[in-house]
Amino acid sequence: MPKKPHRVALGRAVRTLRQERGWTLESLAAEAGLHWTYVGGIERGERNPSWDNVVKLTSALDVSLTELARLIDGEK
Amino acid sequence: MPKKPHRVALGRAVRTLRQERGWTLESLAAEAGLHWTYVGGIERGERNPSWDNVVKLTSALDVSLTELARLIDGEK
Repeated sequence: MPKKPHRVALGRAVRTLRQERGWTLESLAAEAGLHWTYVGGIERGERNPSWDNVVKLTSALDVSLTELARLIDGEK
Repeated sequence: MPKKPHRVALGRAVRTLRQERGWTLESLAAEAGLHWTYVGGIERGERNPSWDNVVKLTSALDVSLTELARLIDGEK
């Protein structure tokens, strides 16, 4: 099954923000209180995270939902 | 357990957009391919929807993720 574009777009945005900070997957996951394999799956567009977990990621990355959404919409 | 503020903010944004369109809960749910009791729970901030379902709601409401996020961030 091909990956869903809106999941891929979310994952790319999360990865972009993480890499801008020079963080590893492990650092971001620890900051967000999530497992690094789960965050890796989100970044690859393979997972369908809950709203709670999307918000945990934005908090960990210290971005607003609007900033995340702009990144996502920019590449859809 | 008190409702989580980020769920309440999402729910209010969805309800605002739906009411602006003059739609019932049932109309929005049908358009999004979700059950109306589930959408009602999201609007009340009681549910933790998946990313897929948040995107289904924005598609049904014909708004971008950025527009939804702006509404959410405006009231957080």
